Amino acid sequence: MSYQFEPGKMYRMPTHFGPSSGPRQGPDGRRFENIDTPKATTLAVSFLTNPDQLEALLPENFELSGEPVVTVAGIYITEIEWLAGRGYNIIAITLPASFNGETDHVTGDFMPVLWENLTDPIITGREELGFPKIYCELPEPTVLGDERHAIASWQGFKWLDLKVNNLHEQSAEEIAALGAQSSSDGILFYKYMPKTGDWGTADVAYPCLSPADSPNRVVKERWSGEGTVEFHKARWEDMPTQYNIVNTLYDLEIREYRGASVTKTAGSKDLSDQRILR
Amino acid sequence: MSYQFEPGKMYRMPTHFGPSSGPRQGPDGRRFENIDTPKATTLAVSFLTNPDQLEALLPENFELSGEPVVTVAGIYITEIEWLAGRGYNIIAITLPASFNGETDHVTGDFMPVLWENLTDPIITGREELGFPKIYCELPEPTVLGDERHAIASWQGFKWLDLKVNNLHEQSAEEIAALGAQSSSDGILFYKYMPKTGDWGTADVAYPCLSPADSPNRVVKERWSGEGTVEFHKARWEDMPTQYNIVNTLYDLEIREYRGASVTKTAGSKDLSDQRILR
Amino acid sequence: MSYQFEPGKMYRMPTHFGPSSGPRQGPDGRRFENIDTPKATTLAVSFLTNPDQLEALLPENFELSGEPVVTVAGIYITEIEWLAGRGYNIIAITLPASFNGETDHVTGDFMPVLWENLTDPIITGREELGFPKIYCELPEPTVLGDERHAIASWQGFKWLDLKVNNLHEQSAEEIAALGAQSSSDGILFYKYMPKTGDWGTADVAYPCLSPADSPNRVVKERWSGEGTVEFHKARWEDMPTQYNIVNTLYDLEIREYRGASVTKTAGSKDLSDQRILR
Amino acid sequence: MSYQFEPGKMYRMPTHFGPSSGPRQGPDGRRFENIDTPKATTLAVSFLTNPDQLEALLPENFELSGEPVVTVAGIYITEIEWLAGRGYNIIAITLPASFNGETDHVTGDFMPVLWENLTDPIITGREELGFPKIYCELPEPTVLGDERHAIASWQGFKWLDLKVNNLHEQSAEEIAALGAQSSSDGILFYKYMPKTGDWGTADVAYPCLSPADSPNRVVKERWSGEGTVEFHKARWEDMPTQYNIVNTLYDLEIREYRGASVTKTAGSKDLSDQRILR
Repeated sequence: MSYQFEPGKMYRMPTHFGPSSGPRQGPDGRRFENIDTPKATTLAVSFLTNPDQLEALLPENFELSGEPVVTVAGIYITEIEWLAGRGYNIIAITLPASFNGETDHVTGDFMPVLWENLTDPIITGREELGFPKIYCELPEPTVLGDERHAIASWQGFKWLDLKVNNLHEQSAEEIAALGAQSSSDGILFYKYMPKTGDWGTADVAYPCLSPADSPNRVVKERWSGEGTVEFHKARWEDMPTQYNIVNTLYDLEIREYRGASVTKTAGSKDLSDQRILR
Repeated sequence: MSYQFEPGKMYRMPTHFGPSSGPRQGPDGRRFENIDTPKATTLAVSFLTNPDQLEALLPENFELSGEPVVTVAGIYITEIEWLAGRGYNIIAITLPASFNGETDHVTGDFMPVLWENLTDPIITGREELGFPKIYCELPEPTVLGDERHAIASWQGFKWLDLKVNNLHEQSAEEIAALGAQSSSDGILFYKYMPKTGDWGTADVAYPCLSPADSPNRVVKERWSGEGTVEFHKARWEDMPTQYNIVNTLYDLEIREYRGASVTKTAGSKDLSDQRILR
Repeated sequence: MSYQFEPGKMYRMPTHFGPSSGPRQGPDGRRFENIDTPKATTLAVSFLTNPDQLEALLPENFELSGEPVVTVAGIYITEIEWLAGRGYNIIAITLPASFNGETDHVTGDFMPVLWENLTDPIITGREELGFPKIYCELPEPTVLGDERHAIASWQGFKWLDLKVNNLHEQSAEEIAALGAQSSSDGILFYKYMPKTGDWGTADVAYPCLSPADSPNRVVKERWSGEGTVEFHKARWEDMPTQYNIVNTLYDLEIREYRGASVTKTAGSKDLSDQRILR
Repeated sequence: MSYQFEPGKMYRMPTHFGPSSGPRQGPDGRRFENIDTPKATTLAVSFLTNPDQLEALLPENFELSGEPVVTVAGIYITEIEWLAGRGYNIIAITLPASFNGETDHVTGDFMPVLWENLTDPIITGREELGFPKIYCELPEPTVLGDERHAIASWQGFKWLDLKVNNLHEQSAEEIAALGAQSSSDGILFYKYMPKTGDWGTADVAYPCLSPADSPNRVVKERWSGEGTVEFHKARWEDMPTQYNIVNTLYDLEIREYRGASVTKTAGSKDLSDQRILR
């Protein structure tokens, strides 16, 4: 007797071993609260670039919103409940954009690509959420004197140096003010899944929103400062599946740096509020 | 100006940096020949199990075909052209099954799950092909005296020991005879992609066939022998995204071992002949 | 012209590229202050064992001092200045012992073995200091609910599970009291270097002391609680260079657990006060 | 009762768990035959350089012998019996030199430094033999078309690219002729161990010879060709324990390439014939 999918349960490949275990469905189907955990430390550097270069990264129905400022963030996460207390790291690229569809009109942080150093969240993120996650090595940033230095590499090729320094700790009031200031509807991205056999066509292609609201997320400490970001040009031989991505980022003009920060947070959400934009 | 998808070109997330580079589409869209490379060494062990346990792994329209013999194979690949000459390793599980759909009736090796130790082929494999690939650490097998020993682990938890020994080299005639004997139509598997936001529903769900024909694949050397396979029971804490998979394999009865082999091959194909079964 | 050793400068193999760079000698010979860095988090579990088993681990002129209590500590270090801000992790075993030599009479924590997950400090530690450091994989501990769980493995074989739970934060007064209580003279260990060619004889063999005094080291936070430690029996095939070590620890009787703790510290010293005991 | 060292048995730190297990002493003290294993593939590239730069790398009583040709070799080893069938990789630097001591007068390949990607052989090699082994990451070389490409990195910093191409397979006669031509007495190196506490002084400092004779070593296949080697300049921050070594190699003039080769061998020896030069 072949198996049947259990109604209302979430599945990922392989589907043959029962409902999947992941961020939005744990053992016995239970949810994860994300209160006080995970812990995250984020290093972020922003720079003003050429708006034409950013427009070229946007899919249909998206357009730049406000100044063409790119933010490169290294996010170092621990105590993740759905990974039974393990952690992993992220490099995320965002730029301000808005989506104007038939029914949805939202403005937020468009994320054209993000890297993670663990395959399991890459798979759940791409398939369940539609985040354009890919893999690279992401060691802990070094901390030397006043400087924090993050790197990213793929099989021995270092493609990113991100440095943050001249940090000044912010007060509770400054931190609260930052949260109040933000008018982003959330993270915008584009899910795409190719169709097997009909090469060049899609099974799935739609824009998505990860809403900004995250009531359990608490900023514990924050420092503002300065920083730099340096992408390294890759040959196909260096990064055969990602050279085009890294080289596009390498080509971005850095017209002016727009500050940097280090932020420590606790708490998150399971992203089950994610939705398709239409 | 937002970008447009180039017609006829293959894409994967992120789609914003141009057509993707992968096994079936290299730089400038060129194909990879797979002649004489990649090189692969396969360690395989088979055992007879309880047919009811295997039936429970089969999706709708699949049924067991012939004896309930499971094969566990460790495949160690080098010189992969689409990875610019790098390699990666695989643990694959197969069992004999047939698919009876509305139009397709095929019999072959059903693959409920496979592990790889590199994220890039996991992503292309899951999304372009529909193979149920997941990640684990797969070091090179040890070779000590007459025994080859492969292990697999995930973040420090070893979930598989596979041993092959008492090996006897096969003649060119024996190798040719084996190829002629096989009546498999290819590898059978089931592609599934969840729908964002409508948790528990699917964007994509269809059976697939990877046809057996592989004209460039040449068996260079082959040894037959004996072997054993041992799965280790995992707690959710040990493998929070895979414990259900490993424990189902752990629970399989080993009624009788059915031999083992080591096979060295050169050449392959780009799997662009893969197709959806209906 | 061959090179000459620079007088007063420290060297390690290879000696041919000038004075070495390491914990006690940086670029241009400068020292590292170790003020406020490195940061360390230590998970420690203690248990009462059979005194005869511990006596058997002591070299000549050492004897047990007080109760036969073994402590197993996982130490997770970041922001190490001599590593330009990187970190590494340690598993250390200690037991109370005293040394009675011709001139030295000291009592402290005898360290029969410690593991680190980075080769560079293993080399400097073994050769400059005489610490019996060996290598294994030491991922960050998981934190799930009230439990912190550290593991240690070598090439896929997990040889240690260390768990700490039921933690209660200690007050500044309790932390200060702990420091005042300690009467240890420091860490005791035994340096040994074999003589090339005369197999079975030594070039170097002497006991050493790492004095307890560490004025820059500040305990920032501390929790006391309960814990368990589980060593896993290894075959020679699992850990061909370390099976005897792990199995001796596996064989230790656990007569009673004697508490556990988590300690966060900042600051350290460069261990240049280390000395040979006579 | 403290333990006694067993006479005639080899020890390494930690000495407290009985005689050590390693390349020259296995379980129960048995020796390893090294017949037919290990297997090794060596990629080597040679270049003519400035003799003054090489002289500066030689310790007292050594001098250059013949043309100042540096060879950089990547050695990829599997099926190592003393590691229970595992493997590891090496980058070795050699240059022709002779030693003239009070009693010994030998000429061979001086090895100022070598890198390995596994700590266990680094420790035994440094301490038992005196080889100047240090650690780095050494992935398998890529093979793409006619080119084999080896890299070496340390914590994300790639410090070496070594490429071999235009390869022509050599006949059994050519291989035999090469063996007969060699007049090297073996590998020359310099053992040095610092004295604990007396910083800047040595416990051990003597030159050593690893004799060339290796009766079990068989060249199975060999290709000669062309190649290039590129060292990358490191900052202290990139490689805080090795930047001086890599930068000295980076500074070496490449006056002319002197060919490259790929060699596959089986069999070795346990290096117990190693000896101190006087």
